[in-house]
Amino acid sequence: MIAMMSPGSADAPGLPAGECPVAGTPDSPPGADRCEDRLARVALMRMAEAGDPVMGRLIRAYGPHGALGQARRGVLAPEFVAAEEAVAPRRRTDLDRLAASWAARYADPAADLAQGEERGARLVIPGDAEWPTQLDDLGDTRPFGLWLDGRANLRLSCLRSVAIVGARAATPYGTTVAADLAHGLGSRGWSVVSGGAYGIDGAAHRGALAVRTPTVVVLACGTDVCYPSAHEELFRAVRGRGVVVSEWPPGSHPTRLRFLVRNRVIAALSRGTVVVQAAVRSGALNTAAHASGLNRHLMAVPGPITSEASAGCHVLIRQGKAVCVTSVEEIVELVGSIGDDLAPEQRGQARPHDALNDETRRVLEAIPARGAAGPAAIAVAAGVDLTTALGCLGGLAAAGFVEAADRGWRLRRRG
Amino acid sequence: MIAMMSPGSADAPGLPAGECPVAGTPDSPPGADRCEDRLARVALMRMAEAGDPVMGRLIRAYGPHGALGQARRGVLAPEFVAAEEAVAPRRRTDLDRLAASWAARYADPAADLAQGEERGARLVIPGDAEWPTQLDDLGDTRPFGLWLDGRANLRLSCLRSVAIVGARAATPYGTTVAADLAHGLGSRGWSVVSGGAYGIDGAAHRGALAVRTPTVVVLACGTDVCYPSAHEELFRAVRGRGVVVSEWPPGSHPTRLRFLVRNRVIAALSRGTVVVQAAVRSGALNTAAHASGLNRHLMAVPGPITSEASAGCHVLIRQGKAVCVTSVEEIVELVGSIGDDLAPEQRGQARPHDALNDETRRVLEAIPARGAAGPAAIAVAAGVDLTTALGCLGGLAAAGFVEAADRGWRLRRRG
Repeated sequence: MIAMMSPGSADAPGLPAGECPVAGTPDSPPGADRCEDRLARVALMRMAEAGDPVMGRLIRAYGPHGALGQARRGVLAPEFVAAEEAVAPRRRTDLDRLAASWAARYADPAADLAQGEERGARLVIPGDAEWPTQLDDLGDTRPFGLWLDGRANLRLSCLRSVAIVGARAATPYGTTVAADLAHGLGSRGWSVVSGGAYGIDGAAHRGALAVRTPTVVVLACGTDVCYPSAHEELFRAVRGRGVVVSEWPPGSHPTRLRFLVRNRVIAALSRGTVVVQAAVRSGALNTAAHASGLNRHLMAVPGPITSEASAGCHVLIRQGKAVCVTSVEEIVELVGSIGDDLAPEQRGQARPHDALNDETRRVLEAIPARGAAGPAAIAVAAGVDLTTALGCLGGLAAAGFVEAADRGWRLRRRG
Repeated sequence: MIAMMSPGSADAPGLPAGECPVAGTPDSPPGADRCEDRLARVALMRMAEAGDPVMGRLIRAYGPHGALGQARRGVLAPEFVAAEEAVAPRRRTDLDRLAASWAARYADPAADLAQGEERGARLVIPGDAEWPTQLDDLGDTRPFGLWLDGRANLRLSCLRSVAIVGARAATPYGTTVAADLAHGLGSRGWSVVSGGAYGIDGAAHRGALAVRTPTVVVLACGTDVCYPSAHEELFRAVRGRGVVVSEWPPGSHPTRLRFLVRNRVIAALSRGTVVVQAAVRSGALNTAAHASGLNRHLMAVPGPITSEASAGCHVLIRQGKAVCVTSVEEIVELVGSIGDDLAPEQRGQARPHDALNDETRRVLEAIPARGAAGPAAIAVAAGVDLTTALGCLGGLAAAGFVEAADRGWRLRRRG
């Protein structure tokens, strides 16, 4: 398989990267166009910051190839600059500097494609069969392309998926809950999307892998960079059954900014985001904000109020931003199709005495919690006549609720 | 002090119980009237089930003395029966049986008053200075009277009070939270109302007593009956600084029905109810329902979703019936006066780099999480020119964020 082909993109041209001309004409055949777009997007993924909305709008206005032409020159078309100034008033010099920084970061996309292929990754871009179209909801900040490494088809894996996110510094309660929820979602045919960090992220993927469900790791570095390095084994397992995703070129290292930028992809890929544990200020709440902004379902798992690790979840619940969820059923009820996946209402176990009629129940209630009472006293306490009380007591004794005692009737202790 | 006098009811007549005529005329002087009402209510507290709305309406229609006359005869006035049938269609025989059961339970109220006095309790009835007028919100199910035992004035204690309720089978998490919340409320001048059970109830009172705040125990048995018996020491401490409350005559034993009936008083006495832990089906949720029905604030404390003991709290939060609360401040914000008691918003600690300007922050973010990078690479990654990058790096080094390394600049590890 070549680097630029994805398992699901049978309609993508089969040209090796080296045969794609970087420059093309409007009359070039569709296959060549597509190939050109692909190379242009690879170049732009290195030149612009992931999620840069200015680049997003440049691509929308001029196509990937046209955008690349301007970015390489470091000079933007005057009408684009005018449109940008209308979108967000800014100093002309800011746009000039942005374009200059793009130009400074240009590198041969064919080399990136070759390097990606060599390291086992494939590129998918908008229009490919494997492209998850729900990313289009990101508008101007939609990824320019995605590098994928793993056996699963990203688009199919994310059709019914839930993001499970939370703190790196999770407690055993948090990792247990994350793994259990992922496990339960996997058992019900839902896949999991998360980052690749310690704590909640890792536990969620492990829970999903335990039921052999495709799980999606979205990284803030190249798919070939193992961060954190202790997750090498985990990422290998994910590649075997799920897929590792990145919008950065092979070899890219993570930065704090990239983790935050990456979070919008986690939120956009899935139908809803569950925050399992999060401090009041944490990256997980950033993902949560993206989920809300994208009109995805936002859910939070409550925890002990004595634990800082759940404080962010409680803030989301208190502010009405997240729905409090306590089980897989409740999650599936939210993200699932209406009518298909309704959560069973939490109910206590029905107790035998629910079946008693009002009169009999009042007689039962009138029997003291400790000691015994005579039938006349019970009748008075229950507000029924003696004959009624005696009838009820007989029935209650037969049903095992009460028993005769030295001084009347008493409750029968179970066990 | 005589039994019928409460510390706060200086306006009540000082006649000993024995001198109160049970029968009276419309022309009897106010003092005698009051005394008569008092005796009549004591009799009715034994004859009717606490909270019986039919008796509540009978008292409203005929006054305590008039209601007692009909109840002793076991015969209700025809116009009252007609009105009852209009309120709630029922078989005539039901009302006849109810009245007959009242008559059957009559006992000399002077004896009850004497017994209460002997056992250290005092009676308060509507109109007394110590009567908590918020109980009037209970309408037809308002208690006929209350027996009190303890140094605190019930009305004053409940002016700023919060009910803390929950499971008997509480976990250590639940009892810790109950005690902490009660302690915190007491420190802020709020008193606590609860039952007398093991688990959450007991922990709440202990937390309140630890800051020497009046705490209110509402029992489902006579104030002289210690249930559960292991709480004898606790109830003694409550009588010393707070008050023990009951709507049943001295010597009455608890029944399951009485616990449920009692719960409405806990909810009505306080400005809001906090459910600390509750199984999906539990008495605490009954108190919660009363609180909602009375338009009191209903709050629930979240907990681990792995614990059945918090499942009822989560149901209340999920259904939007209760506000999720995680601290004393959040409780006080709800039940307190607007503007007076606003909870501080939960915020993470501000981090030093919040103060950096955008350009400097981007330079900081561009430095790899691991290893070092040269200033040119950092400038490109940050999208700034080299001069700007060098300027920012100098500032960041001075502020302790970064340090020079063999091959450029790296993040400075703290500690």
